[in-house]
Amino acid sequence: MILVNGTPGAAITAMDRGVAYGDGVFRTFRARGGCALQWRRHYSKLAHDCTALAITAPPADMLENEISSACAGEAECVVKIIVTRGASERGYAYSSGAETTRIVVAAAEAAAHPADHASVGVRVRLCSLRLSHQPALAGLKHLNRLENVIARAEWSDASISEGILLDREDHVIGGTMSNVFAVMSGALITPALDRCGVAGVTRDRVIDAASALGTACSVTTLSWTDLLASDEVFVVNSLVGVWPVRELNGAERGLGPVTRNIQRALQLEDDAKVA
Amino acid sequence: MILVNGTPGAAITAMDRGVAYGDGVFRTFRARGGCALQWRRHYSKLAHDCTALAITAPPADMLENEISSACAGEAECVVKIIVTRGASERGYAYSSGAETTRIVVAAAEAAAHPADHASVGVRVRLCSLRLSHQPALAGLKHLNRLENVIARAEWSDASISEGILLDREDHVIGGTMSNVFAVMSGALITPALDRCGVAGVTRDRVIDAASALGTACSVTTLSWTDLLASDEVFVVNSLVGVWPVRELNGAERGLGPVTRNIQRALQLEDDAKVA
Repeated sequence: MILVNGTPGAAITAMDRGVAYGDGVFRTFRARGGCALQWRRHYSKLAHDCTALAITAPPADMLENEISSACAGEAECVVKIIVTRGASERGYAYSSGAETTRIVVAAAEAAAHPADHASVGVRVRLCSLRLSHQPALAGLKHLNRLENVIARAEWSDASISEGILLDREDHVIGGTMSNVFAVMSGALITPALDRCGVAGVTRDRVIDAASALGTACSVTTLSWTDLLASDEVFVVNSLVGVWPVRELNGAERGLGPVTRNIQRALQLEDDAKVA
Repeated sequence: MILVNGTPGAAITAMDRGVAYGDGVFRTFRARGGCALQWRRHYSKLAHDCTALAITAPPADMLENEISSACAGEAECVVKIIVTRGASERGYAYSSGAETTRIVVAAAEAAAHPADHASVGVRVRLCSLRLSHQPALAGLKHLNRLENVIARAEWSDASISEGILLDREDHVIGGTMSNVFAVMSGALITPALDRCGVAGVTRDRVIDAASALGTACSVTTLSWTDLLASDEVFVVNSLVGVWPVRELNGAERGLGPVTRNIQRALQLEDDAKVA
């Protein structure tokens, strides 16, 4: 079900700045029984990203109610929230009092990806598109996503689950729809996202889980060469969880114990929420 | 009036990739008597930008008819066309057969800017936002315009008409809503747009007019220092035409003969179309 500003229906105005300029932010996550998993983290990031763009974030309880309505009694849903700066006349300028547009979409979809990806791992390729550096937007899950669209269109082989994106300096930034972690000498490394990339909720969860497990985790630059040389690689997002990478740009890789420990830690958290 | 896929009405679906990812292109121009000014140039760029993003461009005659309908008998309109990749399920991947969304908006608006800007010149500031380099998108008038939105939000002084955008290497790229020309020793210089920026129709018209007038015009890198040291500066777009810059980041500047010659050449072309 789709709610726009709390009302069932999919229609928004063509004058919305979301479509005119990609002027807004979004989040995608799972909901169980009408409740968003990791909601506090998702809302916190949504509010942060809104603030970064000087968009007024909708109140958390309003969104919680709308997520529940949109899930319409379904046990398991994928939910996407979009918040745009709202409609305006032509022109990039906006008035601070503009009314935002809130879109909540819930789909009781069967998993879009095979369930065994988490256990047997996935094939991942390197994208040729290089991400641009824009510190003013780095880390935000904003609606200017043409780079992701272009990168995802580079392959059609359904057996390849993700593409790795580098910046122009051959630093790994993330996947087209995920964040990336490497394991080197037992420690985790994930790219710093201060110049490009999207800082996802599951990335934060992995960083926190590593801390709880006593596993070192550094957020720093990670070159493509380092990624290839690392002991383990995995990609994460809020829909798929943790996917071990069993093939990286054509080279087979073993799955490893650090990835398994992180998977287990996140699974335990998820199970605790359900129980 | 607003037409969506040829039908009067402003509603599009919230699932449109235009709002989800800014996955589309646009053009803005003037129409007289329901006919777009410089239509051949605008359509050519629209089609080019669609092709660059692997979006099927709507046929020219279909758009011409819709522009005429949207103008609804008004003598003078500002028209905006948006073409998105259309609606899709969640995810960056798209199928090549997807049906695009076509939005044609015409407004019989009074000029948004004082008419004397073209004669007495405008005040222009330097924006602090630096444009990112993305060759895969450079030059295109796509819907990922958060950089423009952020840059335009840097000032609220209504007496400042435009902001100049540099890249991270202090090269001038353009204005937030315009292209920029400098005059040095009688010759025109306008920034190359192979790494960022939007290549507008009026920029092409100025380049062609300069050629017809026997005025040299080079498309190359232009530093901020060079812009400050230039004899004349003007900004152009399809709605405002040619605006001489009479103040650049606080420094008064004289208007000059090259700018006037270009203005006159474009005006003659426009008058010929109307006659």
